[in-house]
Amino acid sequence: MKVVCIQNAPKFGAKEKNFQEVRSLLNKVKADLIVLPELFATGYTFTSKAEAKELAETNHGKTAEFLKELSIKTGATIIGGFVEIEDEKIYNSALIVSENKVIDTYRKIHLFNKEKLWFEPGDKPLKVYDVKGMKIGVMICFDWMFPEVCRTLTLLGMQVLAHPSNLVMPYCQNAMVTRCLENRIFAITSNRIGREKRGQDDFNFTGMSQITNFNGEILSSAPDKKTDVLSIEIDPNKAKDKMINDFNNLLDDRRLDFYKTSYNLE
Amino acid sequence: MKVVCIQNAPKFGAKEKNFQEVRSLLNKVKADLIVLPELFATGYTFTSKAEAKELAETNHGKTAEFLKELSIKTGATIIGGFVEIEDEKIYNSALIVSENKVIDTYRKIHLFNKEKLWFEPGDKPLKVYDVKGMKIGVMICFDWMFPEVCRTLTLLGMQVLAHPSNLVMPYCQNAMVTRCLENRIFAITSNRIGREKRGQDDFNFTGMSQITNFNGEILSSAPDKKTDVLSIEIDPNKAKDKMINDFNNLLDDRRLDFYKTSYNLE
Repeated sequence: MKVVCIQNAPKFGAKEKNFQEVRSLLNKVKADLIVLPELFATGYTFTSKAEAKELAETNHGKTAEFLKELSIKTGATIIGGFVEIEDEKIYNSALIVSENKVIDTYRKIHLFNKEKLWFEPGDKPLKVYDVKGMKIGVMICFDWMFPEVCRTLTLLGMQVLAHPSNLVMPYCQNAMVTRCLENRIFAITSNRIGREKRGQDDFNFTGMSQITNFNGEILSSAPDKKTDVLSIEIDPNKAKDKMINDFNNLLDDRRLDFYKTSYNLE
Repeated sequence: MKVVCIQNAPKFGAKEKNFQEVRSLLNKVKADLIVLPELFATGYTFTSKAEAKELAETNHGKTAEFLKELSIKTGATIIGGFVEIEDEKIYNSALIVSENKVIDTYRKIHLFNKEKLWFEPGDKPLKVYDVKGMKIGVMICFDWMFPEVCRTLTLLGMQVLAHPSNLVMPYCQNAMVTRCLENRIFAITSNRIGREKRGQDDFNFTGMSQITNFNGEILSSAPDKKTDVLSIEIDPNKAKDKMINDFNNLLDDRRLDFYKTSYNLE
């Protein structure tokens, strides 16, 4: 299966321009899975809730329409970030789109920094999507920091993690090696580049988008400051086997009696 | 507080020789916490359960006596691995010793590879020891692979992880960066070096013992093939604060409703 990861610098508020850039980056690309950055159509650095709301869409808005168009052109399942609105609430979400249809949205459950001022925390369960033989899990950016997210998705059957990101800290790319190892999954971290100086914030996004395999190997990695398209063949079924030697199965070896109560401690 | 990490190559079955080497490595060392490798007195590569049993001890055996001696000489809490026997069952354990007393033993809950043939899996809860103002958690080697272990210990109040190891895979040292970041804890991974070719096994232990801080910084690191003593000052209280910016607290931000049922899925 061919998986593709887009790394670019979206321009704040300029949806059509951002669509056009992604469109041309994916010109003639055929793939099974394509992952775009978090908030790829709007930019990241909001200065008020009103501003974020102005750029928000339902799951049948412009961004959904654009990803549906891409899903037809590329043949791929597409996952990309957008500002979602439902019942006047806005979320930092990702659209999951395949064959001209929106399958679902994922709403980021761990909001980073001032995102807490603009967005509601995600209110929908973590889910795995079985699309054309690939079991895809979705998390957004800072969700990486909580090992429970990848673990939960793995227990739900995830083989490939789609991970739209707008990373500003330097830790995630390396941590994804451990996330993949500890769960024996593939991960596609699509991170943006560029700088956004808006209001009191001045963010430099770290790029270095990364495709990592079940064995913690970095299969493909983008530079830190350049637009890039990563593309690689993987066999998602390799993530089914959780044995790491003749004796150890990473899921069966968990000692639930020793964790579970503690995990629920406040 | 001064924390110390020993890296050496224990000789299989030669307890007195191994004690003597540790004794001389710690000659004149004064510290608050000293971590020795997994199974530092016996070596690792057993060829039968009977052989492991022959080298097993209770928590008032020779190895306990040796660590008590060290605790007096160094003034430190000492954590080091040994083969523990109780009611005819043997465990891959660590002794926790302070001020000439055995405080407890930890029995490895995730056995690696053929350890499953020799040892019983740990049957005691994960615990944090409050010793002279430092909250110490203990795990052994392969326990690192399961993020639930460090998380559980963190929820129990751990500031500093003592991590006796006999690592043969190349992943752990880098993973400890993520373990420390995701929990904001200090970790002292004391790994052995050298080769053990016994029975059908031929293990090369990877060294590179490591002291890592709450921010994922590697404070001190040993070479891969040389005996070494790492020694560094840390402030364990730095691990109390789980805020990583003005908005995010790594423990309070967990979304238990989204993990807990899944964590118990089989």
